[in-house]
Amino acid sequence: MLRFAVLGHLATTSGKFSLSDMPGGAGRMDILCRCVNASLFLSHGMRRDVEVYLVLLGPPDPPKTVLFPGKTVRYLSPDERSSGSLIQKALAQPVSEEFRETTPGVFVRRGGLPELLAEYPFVLLDESGTDIRTVSLLPDNYLLSDHLNLNAQEVAAVAGMPVFSVGPLALHADHTLTVLLNEHDRRAA
Amino acid sequence: MLRFAVLGHLATTSGKFSLSDMPGGAGRMDILCRCVNASLFLSHGMRRDVEVYLVLLGPPDPPKTVLFPGKTVRYLSPDERSSGSLIQKALAQPVSEEFRETTPGVFVRRGGLPELLAEYPFVLLDESGTDIRTVSLLPDNYLLSDHLNLNAQEVAAVAGMPVFSVGPLALHADHTLTVLLNEHDRRAA
Repeated sequence: MLRFAVLGHLATTSGKFSLSDMPGGAGRMDILCRCVNASLFLSHGMRRDVEVYLVLLGPPDPPKTVLFPGKTVRYLSPDERSSGSLIQKALAQPVSEEFRETTPGVFVRRGGLPELLAEYPFVLLDESGTDIRTVSLLPDNYLLSDHLNLNAQEVAAVAGMPVFSVGPLALHADHTLTVLLNEHDRRAA
Repeated sequence: MLRFAVLGHLATTSGKFSLSDMPGGAGRMDILCRCVNASLFLSHGMRRDVEVYLVLLGPPDPPKTVLFPGKTVRYLSPDERSSGSLIQKALAQPVSEEFRETTPGVFVRRGGLPELLAEYPFVLLDESGTDIRTVSLLPDNYLLSDHLNLNAQEVAAVAGMPVFSVGPLALHADHTLTVLLNEHDRRAA
């Protein structure tokens, strides 16, 4: 199983956002929607062996984590509005510390980065890291940020974590996941 | 200069589509919007050396080609609605056989695949092709299709064209462009 956790520093934690204004009013939720797409879609089907954790840290009620497991998710199409709509429905539900299913195969819980770091041995994706093509055994659990750098608290939380990059240029989060998955696909082939 | 041409077999050729229904009423225009994003965006800036040609073949007035040159495009954000809105404005203008600027740095003309093939030596991106990682000198001009296979007329038009693939699995068009650009980035670094 591959796991991706994406930090949405400004991403709203209320379900009352407009699907027509995800870059603005929803705190760059569009980035997280594209990460869901990049993680889960193949040309003819879904990546059943990938889970995406969206860590939503914006107002009014942070932190919340929305989970899209490729194995279970339903009613998901590749466009941004589709994943945005499932996120919206997840955020409209009450949350507890356990993941709760909000639409078929999509889940939400109260919690953010510390909870995830306690559960899986994440590595960090960042342009400063070791090139994934040079790594003999690729990790399974990857953390990456949206358009903002890690804040001081997050930097402290990831101290000592191995860092990997997907190439010479700094890419958008979703593009980074696409390139990373290509490397995994090639090694699995 | 890198050039990508994406065939939108069902993509509307009228500007009167809804930005909230691009997968449906606009004939999978969402795919073409994601190809614009994948082609032109870096984390901190635009790919000024890439041009994307969207070949729109759907009703009511095909063929039209919308051109996004990274060098000139303005008012473009990474979300699907942003490129969708610029496509909409391009399609609302009269067309001739010459490219005409419809919003700053975005252009439209009457024409489709035959015109492009007469202008640049395109290669085809398809999962059946030669792996780009094994190619000593990468081409500059790439043709790819949306979610549909090439039709009989298109197959005839590309007969004899070199074919390249980006990996072992069939990917969405935008993911294919992202992986391809990563290979170009690595060689240019």
